[in-house]
Amino acid sequence: MQAAPFHPPQRTLMGPGPSDVPARVLAALGRPTIGHLDPEFVAFMDDLKRLLQHAFRTANELTLPVSGPGSAGMETCFVNLVEPGDTVIVCQNGAFGGRMRENVERSGGTAVMVMDRWGDAVDPGKVEEALEAHPEAKIVAFVHAETSTGALSDARGLVELAHRHGALAIVDAVTSLGGVPLEVDGWEIDAVYSGSQKCLSCVPGLSPVSFSPSAVEVIRGRRTKIQSWFMDTNLVMGYWGSGQRRSYHHTAPINALYGLHESLVMLAEEGLEAAWARHRRHHLALRAGLEAMGLPLFVAEPVRLPQLNAVSVPEGIDEAEVRRRLLQDFDLEIGSGLGELAGRVWRIGLLGHSARRRNVVLCLTALESVLGDLGARVQRGVAVPAALAVLDR
Amino acid sequence: MQAAPFHPPQRTLMGPGPSDVPARVLAALGRPTIGHLDPEFVAFMDDLKRLLQHAFRTANELTLPVSGPGSAGMETCFVNLVEPGDTVIVCQNGAFGGRMRENVERSGGTAVMVMDRWGDAVDPGKVEEALEAHPEAKIVAFVHAETSTGALSDARGLVELAHRHGALAIVDAVTSLGGVPLEVDGWEIDAVYSGSQKCLSCVPGLSPVSFSPSAVEVIRGRRTKIQSWFMDTNLVMGYWGSGQRRSYHHTAPINALYGLHESLVMLAEEGLEAAWARHRRHHLALRAGLEAMGLPLFVAEPVRLPQLNAVSVPEGIDEAEVRRRLLQDFDLEIGSGLGELAGRVWRIGLLGHSARRRNVVLCLTALESVLGDLGARVQRGVAVPAALAVLDR
Repeated sequence: MQAAPFHPPQRTLMGPGPSDVPARVLAALGRPTIGHLDPEFVAFMDDLKRLLQHAFRTANELTLPVSGPGSAGMETCFVNLVEPGDTVIVCQNGAFGGRMRENVERSGGTAVMVMDRWGDAVDPGKVEEALEAHPEAKIVAFVHAETSTGALSDARGLVELAHRHGALAIVDAVTSLGGVPLEVDGWEIDAVYSGSQKCLSCVPGLSPVSFSPSAVEVIRGRRTKIQSWFMDTNLVMGYWGSGQRRSYHHTAPINALYGLHESLVMLAEEGLEAAWARHRRHHLALRAGLEAMGLPLFVAEPVRLPQLNAVSVPEGIDEAEVRRRLLQDFDLEIGSGLGELAGRVWRIGLLGHSARRRNVVLCLTALESVLGDLGARVQRGVAVPAALAVLDR
Repeated sequence: MQAAPFHPPQRTLMGPGPSDVPARVLAALGRPTIGHLDPEFVAFMDDLKRLLQHAFRTANELTLPVSGPGSAGMETCFVNLVEPGDTVIVCQNGAFGGRMRENVERSGGTAVMVMDRWGDAVDPGKVEEALEAHPEAKIVAFVHAETSTGALSDARGLVELAHRHGALAIVDAVTSLGGVPLEVDGWEIDAVYSGSQKCLSCVPGLSPVSFSPSAVEVIRGRRTKIQSWFMDTNLVMGYWGSGQRRSYHHTAPINALYGLHESLVMLAEEGLEAAWARHRRHHLALRAGLEAMGLPLFVAEPVRLPQLNAVSVPEGIDEAEVRRRLLQDFDLEIGSGLGELAGRVWRIGLLGHSARRRNVVLCLTALESVLGDLGARVQRGVAVPAALAVLDR
């Protein structure tokens, strides 16, 4: 049996996630494993929960990292809140709204779809119409920051709208948490899920979630059992709840949680507002460079995410070849378009630790070089100065 | 916002898992994160799958690590194979059979329970009776190595029995994989799941699973949609299937997979048979020491697991106080009893990397010291020599 250790290359990660992971977080992963019921670990869990509450800006007791990736966090929100026969208004303006629909339907609910063009924000007018047409709707679900397009929706307004019609709001904050303002309590979000590998710059595999007291009440009042044992928050809270007495539900992913904790400590050290401002500053610099080069951003300015930049592929350029060369020659990863944007855009992430001066400069330099080699009509020598002018303003 | 890095204590892990994690595996966790669609990562996935197939002794194409803990792997097996209305014979001889029942019922199936005493193996006679009484049964599900008691069941015989009655077999190999013989192809197991943090000595958080071609056929022929989007093997295989073309399903837990890969490389280097023999040898040594001290094992010899040893708590001893002192004075973790064995046994794990001479000696020495201090009637000074005599035989 041939078997050899794997030594990954050292990439710069500027796709839609995972983002660059700081050395501090990588080092935390390798700290000694302890038991999931060790008193030291129980104290650690309390601290981790406090840090998650800080990042989400919430006092919700039911705040914890789901032991799986963002899609497990998404499913945790839906299977706990949706019962067979429930109507859920699902807003789709990219790939992830489609996944929400799957979640609703597989939970036995009916999804009423509110469709917007990929790259646009969710249109509150259409959501209001859907709520008026479906007074039985129990939940409105939408994506705050669409990872597939780079569009930001007005979470505060959409939650208000849902509440005005007596519905709960489930918010996908996978790409927004830590990158743009997100106020779980301030906006009265009922259920929210995120991912560890985006603006938190931890490794992939964990999904922070939070449920409001109203959402918890709805879960407690269910007529039917939650269809997933693994994701049943009633059971999970026996382990993640307060106090020294924790009952075993499943073995927590100890070392991954060390990494998440470290990334949240770094976020607390920087401050949430400072992190939002850093994402915005580096986005403006990247944009200035791209535009100077002649590469327009795909999403309209008012709803453009700073941390995820969809860039239109120039006519006649094989976008996959560009990504292949960036990876091969510069060890730089950027993302392809997803779904109906496949082949039409690249997605350049400035997520978390990737929102740094060196990343912006490398990305612009490498793009300029590769596009030039492939004969694209790009302006040479102007992108980096334009970006630095923004950063040094 | 107060925030400080977490520095865990350095424990010796001899509970029911997580087990001691070798330095090589901890170091692998901290290697540079790369993208889940990076060509280097795709090649790595193929190698990881090959190593998993080796550990499971299978050629099953549908062999992969579920991106969640063992209970997510369990649920993956049940939600893919059980449809509403299906009858599943669930064997319960400890805590985890009960969890299987939950999985069957939440998938809309009917669980026919075959109950055995905690600490006994599953009784094939009772399973046969259940199969005769329920000719409609689609699946027989049982735990190979019961982590809650330390009893080993005859997986080969039970699978044969299921097949003779036209049923599939789902096998819980969470604690057996890597510790005792497990032959997924040789025994014709249809679906099997395990955990990373037991005899593989990786960190917790991943669940290797494997499905036979017959199981895949049953999944393909379902009348209803799989209730979990996250666990739907039809979708997951778009990412974990063969070839260079992988479609994104969810972001893989990259760094955790580095750790699992390293642990499987170590297993391949040692050899599966050698790993089984090492578990058995250290178990016999631990047993000799415990018996010399006057501490009997709870499970009868013929069905006793080497890697998980349930030890009867002496009369009048507060078992929790013993564990507290072992942790405090020796940084040694052993497990408590679960469910109906709570307070009656300790569970001493010799899982994976914990099946070492130094662990056996530390555990016996520490137990002798703590039990002596608490006034238990244990023989002093005989346990370690008895254990070493076995190891040096």
